[in-house]
Amino acid sequence: MNFDQQLQNKIDLKTKPLKALGQLEEIAFKIGKIQKTLSPELISPSLIIFAADHGLAQEGISAYPTEVTQQMVLNFLQGGAAINVFCQQNNINLKIVDAGVNADFEKNSNLIHAKAGYGTQNMLNANAMTAEQLSFCFQKGEDIVDKLTKSKCNIVGFGEMGIGNTSSASLLMSSLLDIPIEECVGRGTGIDDIQLYNKKVILKRVMENRGCPNSVEEALLFFGGFEIAQMYSSMLEAYRKNMVIMIDGFIASSAFLAAYKIDPKILDNALFCHQSDEKGHQLLLKKLNEKAILKLNLRLGEGTGCAIAYPIIKSAVEFLNKMASFESAKISNK
Amino acid sequence: MNFDQQLQNKIDLKTKPLKALGQLEEIAFKIGKIQKTLSPELISPSLIIFAADHGLAQEGISAYPTEVTQQMVLNFLQGGAAINVFCQQNNINLKIVDAGVNADFEKNSNLIHAKAGYGTQNMLNANAMTAEQLSFCFQKGEDIVDKLTKSKCNIVGFGEMGIGNTSSASLLMSSLLDIPIEECVGRGTGIDDIQLYNKKVILKRVMENRGCPNSVEEALLFFGGFEIAQMYSSMLEAYRKNMVIMIDGFIASSAFLAAYKIDPKILDNALFCHQSDEKGHQLLLKKLNEKAILKLNLRLGEGTGCAIAYPIIKSAVEFLNKMASFESAKISNK
Repeated sequence: MNFDQQLQNKIDLKTKPLKALGQLEEIAFKIGKIQKTLSPELISPSLIIFAADHGLAQEGISAYPTEVTQQMVLNFLQGGAAINVFCQQNNINLKIVDAGVNADFEKNSNLIHAKAGYGTQNMLNANAMTAEQLSFCFQKGEDIVDKLTKSKCNIVGFGEMGIGNTSSASLLMSSLLDIPIEECVGRGTGIDDIQLYNKKVILKRVMENRGCPNSVEEALLFFGGFEIAQMYSSMLEAYRKNMVIMIDGFIASSAFLAAYKIDPKILDNALFCHQSDEKGHQLLLKKLNEKAILKLNLRLGEGTGCAIAYPIIKSAVEFLNKMASFESAKISNK
Repeated sequence: MNFDQQLQNKIDLKTKPLKALGQLEEIAFKIGKIQKTLSPELISPSLIIFAADHGLAQEGISAYPTEVTQQMVLNFLQGGAAINVFCQQNNINLKIVDAGVNADFEKNSNLIHAKAGYGTQNMLNANAMTAEQLSFCFQKGEDIVDKLTKSKCNIVGFGEMGIGNTSSASLLMSSLLDIPIEECVGRGTGIDDIQLYNKKVILKRVMENRGCPNSVEEALLFFGGFEIAQMYSSMLEAYRKNMVIMIDGFIASSAFLAAYKIDPKILDNALFCHQSDEKGHQLLLKKLNEKAILKLNLRLGEGTGCAIAYPIIKSAVEFLNKMASFESAKISNK
């Protein structure tokens, strides 16, 4: 038996009908394969929130004012946000990255300073970022994950905060998958019909003004944002370090899509934690042929889908390690 | 503001876009309403597995031999089953009830002796149980939950083990909802096409031989099983004790359906934890207009859906209690 067969065999001989643990069995198989062991372990689970501001938010594409990015970062640092509550509940180590918020923060042991600017440029008029800012983001994204692995962490989730960032995600998705922008646009944090129409018009104008990007890097340069570019490079580094990669909602998935375009094998290490209500996300998962673990109608970001799905991922590893086999429990198989 | 409005208001003023925590918000609202407090608590979460054998299993309706019921009870007691692993992971107190297994067990502090018989009668030829057995089951079901509340437990999950019990569940569902039996029958623990055809033929003959039950009690008397009758009465007692009731898969849902027919208000206290792959379960949830928390293609029973969903239910309570509000975190609302 080769390794895959051994792993499948271990799953199949647990005291349960064949495949009766459904998606948990697929997760257990995936993690066993990543770690190349029949007894995988999840060590120091961590979640990183990348926060940044978006120049396009001036155009009224979001339900909330841009100050909310800064205010929410402070909320994360004070422990009052949803993601703080869920990480605390599930013993997940939480780090916040200032990838480019339009404000300065005091030093805090949970805050990583990786500021590429005070928000991106308004994409209607200019590229979201300069080539220097992009390569700064790539370097920082790598460094952050590299540092994480020093603590032996082998599973990391990616979340974000940035008023206006569903627009960047939609533009990236549209250009990287060659899908009309209308199909990639949704209500973000809750805009109404008129605002949604307006958002579509603006994103179409951005596409006309910026043109068609010739590479993944150019797409990130055109459409941003800083948090997405850093997530992208963090994900690629997490893959190089052979970590289990937990992907949150639409924006994290758009960063993943960019990484996937560079190295499709990253899919082997990825767990999509939650299928968002955001229209584009459902289509994106379909294009990747992936099924998310949860579908709870969350549309918050921050990595909340990862934090809530983590106990289920852990259940998959636990059953693989701890359940009895038909033989050890002396139970009649079919 | 009345209580419902106060509760909704507390949810709405958390630092997140309106309704952005999706189904978690509905769960938080439900538990707040059950406990009549803006700060609900989950105390001593418990899970009860009711195990029993089924006379109809002689007819080859299951993928597994009947000895597996007994063997799995021993597996539960030795801690080797999936449900043991998940309960241990999530700090859920696990009790196993011998409601009528075709075997005797040694004393064990985790085993509750509530044996109504050594398996039900073969329903093709006789009612599954006698009136005495049914009232014994009702009494035991009540006692078990009553004792649980002495430990202050306020949330309880229901699971089961019993080779052949999807047949009882299908028959109960068909008769209680007046749906043709074909639409209520699935593959159980994994029978093939021929076995499925055979199962449908046998269940049709059971319905012809037993006739149409005139009450919920008569349905339980006709179709069993002991574990379903005890679950039914336990659920009603859990409702009277105002507990949060976690429902596992198809069989637990059929017991719930019987309880619901007696007192529809029990729905206020129920959380459906997992939508099973079993065809009848999807239809049953649809008829109750309920959406399960998880859909992971589990088809194991044992209460595994409850144990895996529990951390998500806890997340709902935690965000309600611990997240900051827009005001407390000084964040701009829409």
